[in-house]
Amino acid sequence: MPDPLVIADREFSSRLFLGTGKFPSNEAMRDALETSGTEVVTVALRRADLSGEGDPYANILEFIDPERYLILPNTSGAMNAEEAVRLAKLAAAAGLPKWVKLEIHPDPTYLLPDPIETLKAAEILVKEGFTVLPYINADPVLAKRLQEVGTATVMPLGAPIGSNRGIATRDQIRIIIEQATVPVVVDAGIGAPSHAAEAMEMGADAVLVNTAIAIASDPQRMGRAFQMSVEAGREAYLLGLPEESDTASATSPLTGFLKR
Amino acid sequence: MPDPLVIADREFSSRLFLGTGKFPSNEAMRDALETSGTEVVTVALRRADLSGEGDPYANILEFIDPERYLILPNTSGAMNAEEAVRLAKLAAAAGLPKWVKLEIHPDPTYLLPDPIETLKAAEILVKEGFTVLPYINADPVLAKRLQEVGTATVMPLGAPIGSNRGIATRDQIRIIIEQATVPVVVDAGIGAPSHAAEAMEMGADAVLVNTAIAIASDPQRMGRAFQMSVEAGREAYLLGLPEESDTASATSPLTGFLKR
Amino acid sequence: MPDPLVIADREFSSRLFLGTGKFPSNEAMRDALETSGTEVVTVALRRADLSGEGDPYANILEFIDPERYLILPNTSGAMNAEEAVRLAKLAAAAGLPKWVKLEIHPDPTYLLPDPIETLKAAEILVKEGFTVLPYINADPVLAKRLQEVGTATVMPLGAPIGSNRGIATRDQIRIIIEQATVPVVVDAGIGAPSHAAEAMEMGADAVLVNTAIAIASDPQRMGRAFQMSVEAGREAYLLGLPEESDTASATSPLTGFLKR
Amino acid sequence: MPDPLVIADREFSSRLFLGTGKFPSNEAMRDALETSGTEVVTVALRRADLSGEGDPYANILEFIDPERYLILPNTSGAMNAEEAVRLAKLAAAAGLPKWVKLEIHPDPTYLLPDPIETLKAAEILVKEGFTVLPYINADPVLAKRLQEVGTATVMPLGAPIGSNRGIATRDQIRIIIEQATVPVVVDAGIGAPSHAAEAMEMGADAVLVNTAIAIASDPQRMGRAFQMSVEAGREAYLLGLPEESDTASATSPLTGFLKR
Repeated sequence: MPDPLVIADREFSSRLFLGTGKFPSNEAMRDALETSGTEVVTVALRRADLSGEGDPYANILEFIDPERYLILPNTSGAMNAEEAVRLAKLAAAAGLPKWVKLEIHPDPTYLLPDPIETLKAAEILVKEGFTVLPYINADPVLAKRLQEVGTATVMPLGAPIGSNRGIATRDQIRIIIEQATVPVVVDAGIGAPSHAAEAMEMGADAVLVNTAIAIASDPQRMGRAFQMSVEAGREAYLLGLPEESDTASATSPLTGFLKR
Repeated sequence: MPDPLVIADREFSSRLFLGTGKFPSNEAMRDALETSGTEVVTVALRRADLSGEGDPYANILEFIDPERYLILPNTSGAMNAEEAVRLAKLAAAAGLPKWVKLEIHPDPTYLLPDPIETLKAAEILVKEGFTVLPYINADPVLAKRLQEVGTATVMPLGAPIGSNRGIATRDQIRIIIEQATVPVVVDAGIGAPSHAAEAMEMGADAVLVNTAIAIASDPQRMGRAFQMSVEAGREAYLLGLPEESDTASATSPLTGFLKR
Repeated sequence: MPDPLVIADREFSSRLFLGTGKFPSNEAMRDALETSGTEVVTVALRRADLSGEGDPYANILEFIDPERYLILPNTSGAMNAEEAVRLAKLAAAAGLPKWVKLEIHPDPTYLLPDPIETLKAAEILVKEGFTVLPYINADPVLAKRLQEVGTATVMPLGAPIGSNRGIATRDQIRIIIEQATVPVVVDAGIGAPSHAAEAMEMGADAVLVNTAIAIASDPQRMGRAFQMSVEAGREAYLLGLPEESDTASATSPLTGFLKR
Repeated sequence: MPDPLVIADREFSSRLFLGTGKFPSNEAMRDALETSGTEVVTVALRRADLSGEGDPYANILEFIDPERYLILPNTSGAMNAEEAVRLAKLAAAAGLPKWVKLEIHPDPTYLLPDPIETLKAAEILVKEGFTVLPYINADPVLAKRLQEVGTATVMPLGAPIGSNRGIATRDQIRIIIEQATVPVVVDAGIGAPSHAAEAMEMGADAVLVNTAIAIASDPQRMGRAFQMSVEAGREAYLLGLPEESDTASATSPLTGFLKR
């Protein structure tokens, strides 16, 4: 596989992760996963059919082929480390992979992650053998500390979940990427293919997208659009982009022809 | 052809225009044109082999298949309307298509276009039967006036030529797109796939890229990266992107599972 | 006078120009002019009491002391050069100073200026002995051409009139300032003291503010706030600001004390 | 006192805090403090003359009148909570006020603060009776947690220390301000009066500035420039600024006069 993304010794050829919320139906979600080319799909644990109760999306796991996709349970809804750890364990007990996207956001308005509880839960889960992918504010020091306790990635936010504001935390993301020893996955805020491309051009290892695909008029086509932009951004990063310049630089010659 | 770009009754399936300056060789340029999927290639007139004189790139036209690409002569190097008109006519006399990318930039530092001379030359060239694509500052009123004299597109700059600063003139480009009755091609400043995608997401009809592809370590692969980002941006525009929001919007449910 | 602004041989100690539209009353306007310290006040010609007809603001000139302020008639409402020239002459004939803020904006939605008509009117008015201050898009080439025909300043927009978006045209304004041989007055878009300060820090010679002062809950106090920010920005420009840096630079020592 | 800033029951009339690093001399610093109008001056503990050893700035405290200014010792140089607590106690033991600007930045390149250690130290110091002003990344959840343990302010960064990039963390700062129950002091990154004004316009309670004043060609005058911009921004916040708008809004009437 050329240029694979490697997380905890597992290789992925796609660098686009997908969330599964907000789709009009499980069928629409399944189709978008397919065209997007994604190989990592995150699922809120409540939605997973662990209990058999009444959520219309409860059978969501039937629509995600575990042979094809890594199902990444997330702890969305957890208010603190204890709840997050409990959720992760329930998922593993129910047979889901022992991977977890760690999300702890006590704030209901902006859904911003709690750095203290996230580090605490990460330490516990790493020790218990989980592969931990923590969702964090774009905080380079926190990112380092999480790496040090053994998380498999860091997942800094570009902007608040569902805000579609792109890479508003550009300066901090740049530092996180520069200092990271694990893959950096930009999560939250990515509301357009140009945002995804920019994250990849900056050197992010992957991006996670949900809202913009799920609520598009055609999630399938939008999934493919994001996949193309992720590939384009990754290619540009690998090939090297020109620096910004304050002055212009002629692409066409300015003299000659007319002067003859 | 689904979703074609139509300029002066000619249909194009690609929305990526390429410039031909700065490539390491004519061969490298030819290969990048091919992978980029472009159908419109702009050539500085001096480079075109109209005179047989000593420019090492003088035989550039031998590397651009006129059956496959629209060769779009540009008037780069013209300081005023008179020079631009003269250049356009020389190109037509030499057998090039009667299309012209009108560029008049008296300023050697920033290569910014002259609005007065550009309008003047556009009027003359339209009357003489040319299909005129004028390069302009991101000036909505000028864009309107050019349309009124009959130009086939308007080509506002995102940022100065070769600056790679992206869509720095975002607000003005948005107004130009909103008011345009001819295709809007964003030209200059596009230094990364994310910039190209953003222009397309805003509703631009096409973009012109040169430097970032020409000077990449592998122009062929970079050409393909830009093509993907242009397609991604166009798709996103057609499908509709979510609005930016000040608050977050949960993609995963916040309640339930844990409470049971 | 230390650091005076000189326009057409007239010296001003304040670098804040004020517009007179949108105030709750002529009295409120008069008071705001006073606290703002401004010395240049622009008035839409229709409002000036040239005709005696029914506009409730028609007596606006009675509220602006011509000994204290330069009254700068503007041609707002003119759709082309001819109308602008006519308006300027009417104002002069009515006894107003032979200065004119040249505004020609045919577009009613964004009120963006017309580069062609503005240059045409400027040429005529300069020849007829007017001191001409043209309102323009942030177009460096146009700015140069206006200087060449003899305008006393150039007044590029930061963003559309009344949009309060600040210096959205940053890159172009920077080039205009770098190349200008006449004072550069940033006009339109300045909706907060920070915007005014930024324009001055970039090296603009003055700014024009209207909406943000006129519609404030207390125009007098807001006028003073803008005056302070203009002074602060000017001082910073004169004294020199540090460059932006990608890395941090310690202001406090990192070693020593703790190690002893 | 109108509109005082109140921190831990102490009132301040100035909303500009000053750092004391990088000045050309202690005399220059003293003079800049005076013209800036500041009432809160932060001092790196190593510099304070606690030991009598050889730092040429070691006698810095002799240049800061404790009757006039609150001397705010900072823990710059501390790598973790333990070191920070130790530094704060040493300062108090040496007779400095029992206030502390808590800075813990293990990263020598960007000097970014450590959220975990900062919260830990804050808890300890609050319990021991210190008035704690923690320097933090622009992390709304961390800000909330610090308030909950009893810090007197939160001091989120606009951009890394000494980077002069302004309020790059705009979106997060806005959320912190919205949710704060203690004063928000924007610290780090403020490199120009326009940055200080913007922070205040957003509703920050105060700003801390150091580099831009200390290294100016004339720190005294630059101190005054910042003070003016802080006042201007505060006034604008209190009086209310207009919203940004996508369309223009005429300040001058567009009809009438010409039509008569």
